[in-house]
Amino acid sequence: MQHDDDILGFTHVTPTASMHVTRHGGRAKCLQRLIRLDMPVPTTVALPFDTVRDIARGQMPQIAAMLSYFGPDALLSVRPSSEDPDWGGPSAILNIGMSETQYEKIVKSAGEETANALYARFIQSYSVHVAHLDADDFDMPKSATRDDVDAALRVYEDEMDEPFPQDIEDQLKAVLRSRAQAWSGTSARLLREAKGAPADAGLGLVVQRMALGVGQGECGSGVIQFANSATGDPQITGRYLSQSQGRDALTEKASAIYLTKDPRGPSFEELCPDQFAELLRFGDLARLRLREEMQIEFTIENGALHILDAVRIGRSSQAAVRIAVALANDDIISKDEAIMRVTPSGLNDVLHRQIDPNAERDLVGVGIAASPGAASGRIVFTSNDAQASAARGEPCVLVRRETSPEDIRGMHVAQAILTVKGGITSHAAVIGRGIGLPCVVGASDLYVSRKKRVLQGADGREFKEGDYITIDGASGHILAGQVPLLEAANDEAVQTLLGWADDVRDIAIRANADTPAEAQMADRFAAEGIGLCRTEHMFFEGDRLTVMREMIFAESEKGRGAVLDRLLPMQRADFEKLFEIMQGKPVCIRLLDPPLHEFLPSDRAGLSALAAALNLPLSDVTARADDLREYNPMLGMRGVRLGIAMPEIYDMQARAIFEATVAAKEKGLVVSPEIMIPLVSAKREVELVKSRMDGVAAAVKAEQNTEFEYSIGVMVETPRAALRAGDIAFNADFLSFGTNDLTQMAYGLSRDDAGRFMSSYVHQGVYPEDPFHTLDTEGVGELLELGAGRARNSRSDIVLSICGEHGGSPSAIDFCRAAGFNYVSCSPFRVPGARLSAAQLVLRDNPEMIIRPPRGKYPMQG
Amino acid sequence: MQHDDDILGFTHVTPTASMHVTRHGGRAKCLQRLIRLDMPVPTTVALPFDTVRDIARGQMPQIAAMLSYFGPDALLSVRPSSEDPDWGGPSAILNIGMSETQYEKIVKSAGEETANALYARFIQSYSVHVAHLDADDFDMPKSATRDDVDAALRVYEDEMDEPFPQDIEDQLKAVLRSRAQAWSGTSARLLREAKGAPADAGLGLVVQRMALGVGQGECGSGVIQFANSATGDPQITGRYLSQSQGRDALTEKASAIYLTKDPRGPSFEELCPDQFAELLRFGDLARLRLREEMQIEFTIENGALHILDAVRIGRSSQAAVRIAVALANDDIISKDEAIMRVTPSGLNDVLHRQIDPNAERDLVGVGIAASPGAASGRIVFTSNDAQASAARGEPCVLVRRETSPEDIRGMHVAQAILTVKGGITSHAAVIGRGIGLPCVVGASDLYVSRKKRVLQGADGREFKEGDYITIDGASGHILAGQVPLLEAANDEAVQTLLGWADDVRDIAIRANADTPAEAQMADRFAAEGIGLCRTEHMFFEGDRLTVMREMIFAESEKGRGAVLDRLLPMQRADFEKLFEIMQGKPVCIRLLDPPLHEFLPSDRAGLSALAAALNLPLSDVTARADDLREYNPMLGMRGVRLGIAMPEIYDMQARAIFEATVAAKEKGLVVSPEIMIPLVSAKREVELVKSRMDGVAAAVKAEQNTEFEYSIGVMVETPRAALRAGDIAFNADFLSFGTNDLTQMAYGLSRDDAGRFMSSYVHQGVYPEDPFHTLDTEGVGELLELGAGRARNSRSDIVLSICGEHGGSPSAIDFCRAAGFNYVSCSPFRVPGARLSAAQLVLRDNPEMIIRPPRGKYPMQG
Repeated sequence: MQHDDDILGFTHVTPTASMHVTRHGGRAKCLQRLIRLDMPVPTTVALPFDTVRDIARGQMPQIAAMLSYFGPDALLSVRPSSEDPDWGGPSAILNIGMSETQYEKIVKSAGEETANALYARFIQSYSVHVAHLDADDFDMPKSATRDDVDAALRVYEDEMDEPFPQDIEDQLKAVLRSRAQAWSGTSARLLREAKGAPADAGLGLVVQRMALGVGQGECGSGVIQFANSATGDPQITGRYLSQSQGRDALTEKASAIYLTKDPRGPSFEELCPDQFAELLRFGDLARLRLREEMQIEFTIENGALHILDAVRIGRSSQAAVRIAVALANDDIISKDEAIMRVTPSGLNDVLHRQIDPNAERDLVGVGIAASPGAASGRIVFTSNDAQASAARGEPCVLVRRETSPEDIRGMHVAQAILTVKGGITSHAAVIGRGIGLPCVVGASDLYVSRKKRVLQGADGREFKEGDYITIDGASGHILAGQVPLLEAANDEAVQTLLGWADDVRDIAIRANADTPAEAQMADRFAAEGIGLCRTEHMFFEGDRLTVMREMIFAESEKGRGAVLDRLLPMQRADFEKLFEIMQGKPVCIRLLDPPLHEFLPSDRAGLSALAAALNLPLSDVTARADDLREYNPMLGMRGVRLGIAMPEIYDMQARAIFEATVAAKEKGLVVSPEIMIPLVSAKREVELVKSRMDGVAAAVKAEQNTEFEYSIGVMVETPRAALRAGDIAFNADFLSFGTNDLTQMAYGLSRDDAGRFMSSYVHQGVYPEDPFHTLDTEGVGELLELGAGRARNSRSDIVLSICGEHGGSPSAIDFCRAAGFNYVSCSPFRVPGARLSAAQLVLRDNPEMIIRPPRGKYPMQG
Repeated sequence: MQHDDDILGFTHVTPTASMHVTRHGGRAKCLQRLIRLDMPVPTTVALPFDTVRDIARGQMPQIAAMLSYFGPDALLSVRPSSEDPDWGGPSAILNIGMSETQYEKIVKSAGEETANALYARFIQSYSVHVAHLDADDFDMPKSATRDDVDAALRVYEDEMDEPFPQDIEDQLKAVLRSRAQAWSGTSARLLREAKGAPADAGLGLVVQRMALGVGQGECGSGVIQFANSATGDPQITGRYLSQSQGRDALTEKASAIYLTKDPRGPSFEELCPDQFAELLRFGDLARLRLREEMQIEFTIENGALHILDAVRIGRSSQAAVRIAVALANDDIISKDEAIMRVTPSGLNDVLHRQIDPNAERDLVGVGIAASPGAASGRIVFTSNDAQASAARGEPCVLVRRETSPEDIRGMHVAQAILTVKGGITSHAAVIGRGIGLPCVVGASDLYVSRKKRVLQGADGREFKEGDYITIDGASGHILAGQVPLLEAANDEAVQTLLGWADDVRDIAIRANADTPAEAQMADRFAAEGIGLCRTEHMFFEGDRLTVMREMIFAESEKGRGAVLDRLLPMQRADFEKLFEIMQGKPVCIRLLDPPLHEFLPSDRAGLSALAAALNLPLSDVTARADDLREYNPMLGMRGVRLGIAMPEIYDMQARAIFEATVAAKEKGLVVSPEIMIPLVSAKREVELVKSRMDGVAAAVKAEQNTEFEYSIGVMVETPRAALRAGDIAFNADFLSFGTNDLTQMAYGLSRDDAGRFMSSYVHQGVYPEDPFHTLDTEGVGELLELGAGRARNSRSDIVLSICGEHGGSPSAIDFCRAAGFNYVSCSPFRVPGARLSAAQLVLRDNPEMIIRPPRGKYPMQG
């Protein structure tokens, strides 16, 4: 089939013309839909991508033929029509065709004022945007006079050495050429590529007869939408401005009037009740047939309503959710379509306080976005000061070079955390995400002097203790002062959408939760269990830390045993609480993982205090701390290595788990704990630990004369464990891939040290993405695939999962679905996004599942 | 064919009997060979492994039939005959058959003294080794009287509730049973398994008629060998003792006489000239036909010579080399057999001073054997003291908790290094191996107080500054005092053997050498090039370190450039020297690898001094050092990451390499340098660095108007680089697998921190071997295989190698040959061992290559 395009280089937009978003762009296609709905759209012609490419190369379509569609005296507008409106495009040019001849005609038909306004506006935009002359030279008053027009014409002629073009064909060609060239410029290309456009993205252009909006009778223009952009709730919003064109009603809001009756002043509803009623009908029709909340651009020309354009309304993340759910609830789109219309990151935003997108941002510095959400507070530099601030009822932001377990109390009462050092899994980041506290780490441009109590911004500005700052944990921005925030919302619309997503998705989502508080959060976000409970975090809290330190200083195995006996009831109580909160959902508990020195104070003062507390000479405490110090703690004496060297620690943990299981059973819960062994690199490690765990289980069963089920699995964090998964699987009921450590070891790159160069690395394209944010499917992913395949060969029923930072990301979920994993586990706050992503991936792979609702008499074509 | 064994349970050893080492053991087989050579061996019967196993289970062979071979009045000996003499076995029992009846006969034939001696000896050894009675109760004077004999008989009867057995058949059965049971005991089994015996290793027994050595006429026993056990040089050694049995002549050396004429006293040569001449003839015959230097045990019975046994002479590593080379030079064995007769570790010992195997070892503690060789010296605790000690001409051992670049000067003048912390690749270890200095690290049982200037041993003993200790870098032992040492020898025999090995081997061997001194060593050991020149070590020396530190503190890229301009001539001179030493052999230069903080002082005093030297405030210096500090330096900002962040460093190095290449060319050398990029994890890293290197090369060519060749390759140290080797190979002329780091990352295990638990891990069998010593073929090896295969798929001519600690080990060479690698590279001192290993592996795989020399009239069978 031959299109108009092929012959003429453009298409007259009619209900039956052959038009596609991928050839003519979104705006052109949308206009065709409005025309099909019998809306009063002025005559419109669409230039497809190919034509615009030809124009950029100097080859014009049949302009004379095109003009014949509009009639002799029409003024025209040219608007961009890219495939995705988000990709942007050159500015619109209105009133093409204005010339001395037209001027005279309009003076006669609509008066000199109108003619001056139209001519002045056209000369201005043509000179600046088409001829690229200096905008300052064409600054004209709103009510331009003929003198103003003449002055502008003179400037044009002086600058261009030729008079202002008078022929509409010349004008249109120049406009089209300039639009086409603007699109193919380098900076425009870079800008749209940053928004996800492909390198060869095309631009369409829409040429439309102007409905003037200025002239005799009621003339004007306005914009209307039917839902609130911030909340998504139904609400008629917009403005109308008499004697105006385009989006003037929005840019000159002060003189514009409300659309609906309003006590604050006159309204369009009162001014033009018939046209207003018609607009409402068109709005309903657009929502129903375009299946979207649209913003409609309209013009009143001598009392007659014209619809010039319609675009998806801009919306906050919260509004996106509510609009999608409302459209589905109204049977306008299917639930599956609603799922596809919300981005996981948008959903994530909804669940945290955000900085108001309209707020001004006074940037102090940028760090690594480590825990989402935004908060303002007064700067404090120590955990004690944070507590004091909280006691005074003053919100505070804890600013540290880096945090250690001693800072826990301060972190719990602060509104946000900022550290200058550390990476996405530094202590501050992990705790921040765990307790849902906004956190920015590794802000290496900033300088903190704890002694002087000063935070120095990247630009040298100093902030003193007590000064307000705002932390944006979603972007990593640190802002001066207090900034307006939008509250978090985990409302009915979110719940509804996620319920629909749960019906679709085919992979389970668990949460990483270490404490009862985190487990409650996991439960609130409907995680299907705990995929990773890091028991060490239990030991950093309150009295536990002291007891843990006593164990480290115990002289012998026996001494350690005595201290562990005191830790046992605490651990058991931890697990009892977890089991109770999770109500029989699976809980995967990782045995103690970090090197022992992480439990010791890092500075001299802390060591002194510890020596006093333990009643030991400082030299002994220092010597032991020194002894435990490691060159590369990440690659040191931790995980199962600790478990094998000091088996009584894991024994205690296993006993606590099993005793808690029995206690839960007595409360009527069915609990089958999963015990996970960390940092495995050889099968024998698993054999050794498993046989001791089995022994402890047998002992608890015998002591309490009861039975219970449990499973023992392995956290695959070393490349070797992935490669040897075939051996390891014989002794493991499940394997959970710890993609954080696996990434560190595959790359030979510590997360905590990577901050120093990662952004420049990604910027230079050395790594396409930060592999700690986006699962490296080529390298780390191959280890996962090899490991999963080998494990299944040994044991076909083995349960496979990933846990860690990647767990909640769409790319990792995509990977895990493809590899046939049973579940992913991520931070509680990322669970909703993960549930949504998982559903979207099912729908992406099965587009035939997305069925449009049968309702509606005029389903849209094409 | 049916053997005697099958019917009788034993074999009469005759020249034609069917006997095999794998069935009857080494001693039995050797005796058959002696018999074939017509040596006067007393009647001998061999019990095969199966029979001894049956005896252990209670089933006796045909003892009466056996005894019929020896005649009615014979006394017998029973000796063990395991497959490999090194596996040990139960002690020999002599004079079986002694009874009251025999006693009377011997009194008549040889006198009471002889009879008492024989009877007392038998009662003693039977009671202690067969009946397991208390040895103290059977302590008898050398010249036992009949009263002594009677007393012993009474003790036996008291303890055993039965009289001492009088029947030779009963005696023999009991002896055989006790020997068989001793072999199957647990501790004997563990001991021999530690020496490499398989779990089911069998024991044969040899029953031989006693040639008495006591009695009338000249009677006695002796031991003779024809080469020096320590040096391997031809030399008749041994002792003869009249009226003695077995190896008495050796145990009671004081009363024994020399074999050859000796000014110090009487000699066997003078005492029994005919028998001596016969012995010499037998010695020659044994060497020629048994194709080995043998130690012969002989007895003179009433003037008649009997040959009782012959075993391979014990030998030092040096002697092993000389003996093998001499046998091959005498055409007794082939060169290939000589190659197979020396172990690589033995060869390694030869190249270092060793502790005299006969010296007493007063063990103070054990650490990680980090650099081979042994040395004694006075303890010093600081680098300055080491230099002072050297200035006084006193040998010293530098003892530190750990070493840092500031200790370099002290290390250069010390005899040995001992550190309490660190692993096989800690600073001390790397430097130690580099400069060939004995080094023990990670001796965590020891405690060093630098303040008190005391080293505390594992047993609590204190050693003060100035006290002598001895370091054995081959075993990791730390010994008190000065211990006798054997000098190193890289003599003609070693050179000859290695020359033969070079003719056989099929993989190239290069050396890791960072400095001209090391390159000279590499050249001395005939390395075929430098496989790894770590340029950073060049910056630790002398003035360089200061300039390097200036660069770290340079404010900007420009400032860095200015300092680098000063480093350029130093680097160029380094490379010029290397190229000159290597005389056109390939030199592979690794670009700067370590994180910058390694170049900074680690303590406050050092930082103060640095601040003074750089004329900077201490706070600035401390802040920068703090800024560079990393959580996991191994996984931090190092290698190519540094090269990309500060490209001017690599540019300087490349320029130095290329300018040195041009300079070498002007001296007539053909140099084609190999530039290696460290710590790669993504192909883009290689592209970026390669394009800059190529640019520098082009600039140098243009500036100097000349041409040269060079190649650029990648050090594969991260698991990801191995997995992505297919991509990476497109931009790499060679890949060298850095198995050290690859092992660290595959296991998630830092070499420096592994010391804390590695020995216990290996002991418990968690890891079969320390993967930093023995290449982990299952895990790390798979990464090597994947990487090599993928790289070759992309580029079939890519050069593949490994470098690092594993490079010189037989298992790694084995692996690399199988994987078709081009070369291995290891420490200079390990090059000879690697050359030997490589040849041995070829011969192992091609046993048909080992052809025995045609000479010799009586080639031995079976």
